[in-house]
Amino acid sequence: MKISMDCYPCFLRQGLEASRIAGADEKMQERILHSIMSALMKVSRDETPPHIGRLIQSTVREVTGNADPYKEIKKFHNEQMLKMEADLVRLINESASPLVTALKLAGTGNLIDMGPERQWKNIAEIFEDVTTKNADYFDHSSFESFLKNAGTLLYIGDNAGEIVLDKILICFLIENTALDIIYAVRGNPIINDVTVEDAEFVGMTDIVRVINTGADFPGVDLNSCSVEFLDNYYGADMILAKGQGNYESLSDESENIFFLLQAKCSLIARKLGCNVGDMILRKQPRA
Amino acid sequence: MKISMDCYPCFLRQGLEASRIAGADEKMQERILHSIMSALMKVSRDETPPHIGRLIQSTVREVTGNADPYKEIKKFHNEQMLKMEADLVRLINESASPLVTALKLAGTGNLIDMGPERQWKNIAEIFEDVTTKNADYFDHSSFESFLKNAGTLLYIGDNAGEIVLDKILICFLIENTALDIIYAVRGNPIINDVTVEDAEFVGMTDIVRVINTGADFPGVDLNSCSVEFLDNYYGADMILAKGQGNYESLSDESENIFFLLQAKCSLIARKLGCNVGDMILRKQPRA
Repeated sequence: MKISMDCYPCFLRQGLEASRIAGADEKMQERILHSIMSALMKVSRDETPPHIGRLIQSTVREVTGNADPYKEIKKFHNEQMLKMEADLVRLINESASPLVTALKLAGTGNLIDMGPERQWKNIAEIFEDVTTKNADYFDHSSFESFLKNAGTLLYIGDNAGEIVLDKILICFLIENTALDIIYAVRGNPIINDVTVEDAEFVGMTDIVRVINTGADFPGVDLNSCSVEFLDNYYGADMILAKGQGNYESLSDESENIFFLLQAKCSLIARKLGCNVGDMILRKQPRA
Repeated sequence: MKISMDCYPCFLRQGLEASRIAGADEKMQERILHSIMSALMKVSRDETPPHIGRLIQSTVREVTGNADPYKEIKKFHNEQMLKMEADLVRLINESASPLVTALKLAGTGNLIDMGPERQWKNIAEIFEDVTTKNADYFDHSSFESFLKNAGTLLYIGDNAGEIVLDKILICFLIENTALDIIYAVRGNPIINDVTVEDAEFVGMTDIVRVINTGADFPGVDLNSCSVEFLDNYYGADMILAKGQGNYESLSDESENIFFLLQAKCSLIARKLGCNVGDMILRKQPRA
């Protein structure tokens, strides 16, 4: 998915927010925004939004000298979700359709994203009324049919905090299917995306093999991924890609990819044919 | 009020929206955003937001060749408000505090603004529950005391559509006080701000003398105003300045100015010590 003119204001907002989280003073914030604008004036319109996201975050890191501005926020979100884990597992076990509930929780968790503009103030509020959420764009039937014929699943994570919901869904799949599951994280810190540190912190590494993309890219840029990642990507019977960054970078690929995400901006909503705030589970149409 | 780093993303959003309203294709939109970014990289941080707003709109006009992109929207808003005029006058006449209700309606009408990001979809929705609106930041008592001692009032308008509410308030003041009132509009089309055309269209010119600022500035830049405007500005016993653009450009001046506006962005809300969405009637503290 290519960048649109609508992304430009959002790129500046993102750069400014990241600058402040990284501790930049006014002078540094100005330098960062100037540098982003200067890059935007040269960038090809064929790039994907995560390409610019990566550029924004590397500018923030360079100017502020802060190598991982979101470190504390990620830790806080992971801790908060771990505290809620037992209750959410109970919710799944007590529900009439445990797989659908687990998928919905994993999709809801995708709101814990520090990239796009946020409509929520605290994590607890995200999980209110989770079981009654609009499911108009939630094709769990296709997902279930694919599960039946798949031997291997590559699960591409997105954000810290959210990873606890990924773990709950993966545990459910391990207990109820014969799937061989691999969980993929980013190769290096970028925004609040999951890295191997988060996978270890929440215990994901105890239940499945965790690999990384090999890149500090807030999505999956196949041109910059490691051979190990690519082997698993092309070798998987099915892929579950979480979140907007993975969707933006893989929406034009042709593998057996299911996208599970929250539509967090009008551009994505237009592309998906839904409204901002809708939760999507959808198979890649090009496969 | 000086620009803040928070204004930068908003300037691009504003430029993009104006480009589309002016009929710019993708190529033109890109040219306009590049031109705005290039200007932002050179601009002094001592400028006010309306200075940049003016620059954005002149870039849009220049690139698209559309001299007045908001012309149709302004006409539509004026017409819509004129249709509601009789009902709103009745609402005022039937209320326990007619002046306060007229002021609240005029303040509510300030939502009809095509500059900042909008939370409303149609005009009718703006006037739902108008009489029960939060009045925490609505100092009508000071306004009423000032009215008693003032001989002349300069009323500085803001947007089309909203001007009908200004007219209703002015009619009420004419009927109930001995004030000599002058209404000021912008010197040339800029966003959906009022010009003499709008004043004529809604009948404002039939009830008071209408002057213009002499500038295509979405606010009041005293350095670029006409002598006629300045004479009336410095000569008025009190000034009522509507909206964010007038506030942003006059908030550091020391005249007897009352600001009546909706806080439409977080920067303004911070400066005013209120929340986004609050309606404000407040006397300039520096006077």
